[in-house]
Amino acid sequence: MEDDLPKRPVNYEPLTPNGFIDWAAHVYPERPAVVHGDYSLTYQAFRDRCYQMAHALAKLGVGKGDVVSVLSPNTPVLLMAHFGVPLLGAVLNAINTRLEAEVIGYILDHAESRVFIVDPELMPLAQAALAEAENKPILFGVTDAVFGPPADWTGFEDLDAAMDASDPGFDAPGIEDEWQAISLNYTSGTTGRPKGVLFHHRGAYLVGINNQFSFRLAPLPVYLWTLPMFHCNGWGNSWAITKLAGLHVCLRQPNAPEIFDAIDRHGVTHASGAPVVLNMLIHADAEHQRQSTHAIHYTVGGAPPPAAMLEKMEAMNFIITHGYGLTETYGPAGGCEWNPDWDDLPLADRAEKQKRQGVQNHTLSGMTIIDPDTMQEVAADGETMGEIMMRGNTIMKGYFKDEAATRAAFAGDWFHSGDLGVRHPDNYVELRDRSKDIIISGGENISSLEVEGVLVRHPEIFEAAVVAGPHERWGETPLAFVDCGPDTSLSPQQVIDWCRERLAHFKCPTEIRFGPLPKTGTGKVRKNILRDQLHG
Amino acid sequence: MEDDLPKRPVNYEPLTPNGFIDWAAHVYPERPAVVHGDYSLTYQAFRDRCYQMAHALAKLGVGKGDVVSVLSPNTPVLLMAHFGVPLLGAVLNAINTRLEAEVIGYILDHAESRVFIVDPELMPLAQAALAEAENKPILFGVTDAVFGPPADWTGFEDLDAAMDASDPGFDAPGIEDEWQAISLNYTSGTTGRPKGVLFHHRGAYLVGINNQFSFRLAPLPVYLWTLPMFHCNGWGNSWAITKLAGLHVCLRQPNAPEIFDAIDRHGVTHASGAPVVLNMLIHADAEHQRQSTHAIHYTVGGAPPPAAMLEKMEAMNFIITHGYGLTETYGPAGGCEWNPDWDDLPLADRAEKQKRQGVQNHTLSGMTIIDPDTMQEVAADGETMGEIMMRGNTIMKGYFKDEAATRAAFAGDWFHSGDLGVRHPDNYVELRDRSKDIIISGGENISSLEVEGVLVRHPEIFEAAVVAGPHERWGETPLAFVDCGPDTSLSPQQVIDWCRERLAHFKCPTEIRFGPLPKTGTGKVRKNILRDQLHG
Repeated sequence: MEDDLPKRPVNYEPLTPNGFIDWAAHVYPERPAVVHGDYSLTYQAFRDRCYQMAHALAKLGVGKGDVVSVLSPNTPVLLMAHFGVPLLGAVLNAINTRLEAEVIGYILDHAESRVFIVDPELMPLAQAALAEAENKPILFGVTDAVFGPPADWTGFEDLDAAMDASDPGFDAPGIEDEWQAISLNYTSGTTGRPKGVLFHHRGAYLVGINNQFSFRLAPLPVYLWTLPMFHCNGWGNSWAITKLAGLHVCLRQPNAPEIFDAIDRHGVTHASGAPVVLNMLIHADAEHQRQSTHAIHYTVGGAPPPAAMLEKMEAMNFIITHGYGLTETYGPAGGCEWNPDWDDLPLADRAEKQKRQGVQNHTLSGMTIIDPDTMQEVAADGETMGEIMMRGNTIMKGYFKDEAATRAAFAGDWFHSGDLGVRHPDNYVELRDRSKDIIISGGENISSLEVEGVLVRHPEIFEAAVVAGPHERWGETPLAFVDCGPDTSLSPQQVIDWCRERLAHFKCPTEIRFGPLPKTGTGKVRKNILRDQLHG
Repeated sequence: MEDDLPKRPVNYEPLTPNGFIDWAAHVYPERPAVVHGDYSLTYQAFRDRCYQMAHALAKLGVGKGDVVSVLSPNTPVLLMAHFGVPLLGAVLNAINTRLEAEVIGYILDHAESRVFIVDPELMPLAQAALAEAENKPILFGVTDAVFGPPADWTGFEDLDAAMDASDPGFDAPGIEDEWQAISLNYTSGTTGRPKGVLFHHRGAYLVGINNQFSFRLAPLPVYLWTLPMFHCNGWGNSWAITKLAGLHVCLRQPNAPEIFDAIDRHGVTHASGAPVVLNMLIHADAEHQRQSTHAIHYTVGGAPPPAAMLEKMEAMNFIITHGYGLTETYGPAGGCEWNPDWDDLPLADRAEKQKRQGVQNHTLSGMTIIDPDTMQEVAADGETMGEIMMRGNTIMKGYFKDEAATRAAFAGDWFHSGDLGVRHPDNYVELRDRSKDIIISGGENISSLEVEGVLVRHPEIFEAAVVAGPHERWGETPLAFVDCGPDTSLSPQQVIDWCRERLAHFKCPTEIRFGPLPKTGTGKVRKNILRDQLHG
């Protein structure tokens, strides 16, 4: 067939999530879009506010390719920026709020931010960051409905006033090409300078429509923002929930009383985040803890949910899905797709299935375990280790201004995750470790994740991190840092004994330290700090 | 931002539904994919069979752009062709099984089909069609698990044998460009030659992932094929259900006993089609009719579901969604998205809301009512008539070998549906008529759809069609053809009285004829035949 039917404006448009906000306002203008404390907006009002933001920025000359940085917890203004900025073809840079001023300054310089929008509580941090930076973006403060206004209004403009003075009917330019950048998310690497991961509109659109699958969403969900929105644009849910005309329930800081309260008040149907949020709920005071009368879908990422956690969350009427991804994959790359054959397994066996990272979602064409030396897929035997690699339409554009790192990450036409894992006979992949977190003891590889998995199955251990300590005879030996909360009576020997009953001896930690674990802004344990403690 | 990050194989791949079958087999190899009578296939077996089909066709030289025609009811072989053909970059042409031999012959010529795969029951029709055609494609018969083998094996090859002799591990070439054609669907126009509507891989992928939204699907659905698969590739569900690793329940011909039986046997969760299928269920014999113990989502298209139908179907535990689209929009263009504000309305008011065609889905950027003369959107007043027009990524590539018709359909950068309708104040559009079905009586426009809507609300009327009859004084007058089943006691005057109580007098039919309505292959009433009857 030699058809000569070209692309035309009627049947070819750049894929972009920009239209999601127009759709929701078109179809459900009076439905609630955003709630934040006692503040709320309908979809019409939310759309109008996004367009006012776009207009306010356009009046400052912000346009195609210009970076707008935002430093904010999960508030309405950060959500609006997910539309207000891309509507101009500009690029949203949502900065991790837990970073140090110096690192934020580095990001503002590297990103060449034109505008910097800052939450009132974080303005002192932002100003400290700007003192470190050479770049001097236009600085905006806002009044937050829950926190209130900034302590003073010195040295920056009022974004709310600028938006009030702008036109909700603004004819936003949009984009010309779906490959244009939509957002710039800096990795919170455990070591080294953060890298700027660029997403494009095509990928953001695909994530936006695929998340209905990955997060088990239905139309008109009620989504509680326990996941930081600065983390891969909330794993794409800033766009996906809007697409489904869902209610965004904002939350400045996840905490058990507010989460239980939001579930009751707003009928939350979905949430996501790291296991630490679930730990919060499990260990909440009895006066706050309650069982939801309706099922809540929670997608957990970052670390697999242990059996005890699954059991306790199921008792609270949570349905847990285990997802997997990295900033470089727009957040959700895949997940442990449930197989009904597992429905009747005992809890421990179900947890064994569910702790796996699983399979790619439909926006990728592959997520598998590859030997990075040969670039061959490893055997699906559940044992042979290799690196988790992915490819497809929701792999980042690349690292901003870092062609060498981009080339390295994309070597052999696969994205190299840096995570080590195995392929099971049923094709599901399982993370075994970050390559740099492998412990080599007497020539044997020890997966710190495997040891951590045994530790957190202990009913009194909330979280655990295992790193390599020096050992005269074996070279390295596993050392365990465990968090049992303040009131533990557990002894180091009891922890070691627990491991010895469940692991080969050479894998068992030889030393146990108690206390809270240091974390990155996105909730990853900072093993480099733990290693430094060993040597300190 | 001047990023210089080009598309690379790792992060840019053509969008195509081809990968859906690989995904389902990768994740759920042992789950059931297809059932047809007592025949069934797991996803691994189904995938392998699709690849064997691709290989068998490749050995005949079928490749990029070659058309493979299939004449079959909803059977496994037609479903396999939705993957086996596009895996080669070839183009699937599923032919309406209710067409006359002469029209099928025309299609085989116009499509330049290289291969023609035919269901055993339809082989005589296919051979009659080939006798009319100049083109002589390679003809294949198959054995159907329910119907059996063809009556004899003279004059064609055995596709099953060719597939048995082919390699399930075949390395299919796939596509290079997402704009490549994937399927060619001929419109069953009520008059004139059918036009060949070309879909591309990008659009088919987008429909495939969007249908989870449009059809209220969840992972692992059980889909009953009451909708002809030759109709816009089953409104995209041949791909979408596979993407979700759902079970395809095949059905040679929809009929109430088999539908109720399939619901019981396979736990059907979803189905779709014209209202006539629901009528079948409502009017089924008491011995077959039963209420499902689980909810079934049924998406109805082609004509709006009247209140009486909604009520009866809800009593049978069906959840009805009203969808809208045309072949030129890959099937689903939009639907009457439910608004929870309507939940508590009385049934008649709910039906008034739900009978509207609604709003575009997320693969289109617009579906609205436009004055075709001025190309301006009409007022959202629920009264001003215009033409329903759409634009976006799931508008066809164009009409195959018909640039003039393509240009006309795309005039002004909108797709002209030929349907007339209004915009309501809440932005939902409602079909009022096909442009050629408007009745003009004494200078007043009468919407035949409006009159039909009143007729089918009568509890004894199953279906109705209203056309213009000649009138000495007024020019035209509405005439009604009504189907009340064989045992009606309704008189013409009673029908006219029913209308007069509900409509302005000038809109009421002046003549009533009883009997079944002539239909096109896709269930549309053939008003041209009714008009001919008037003049006959």
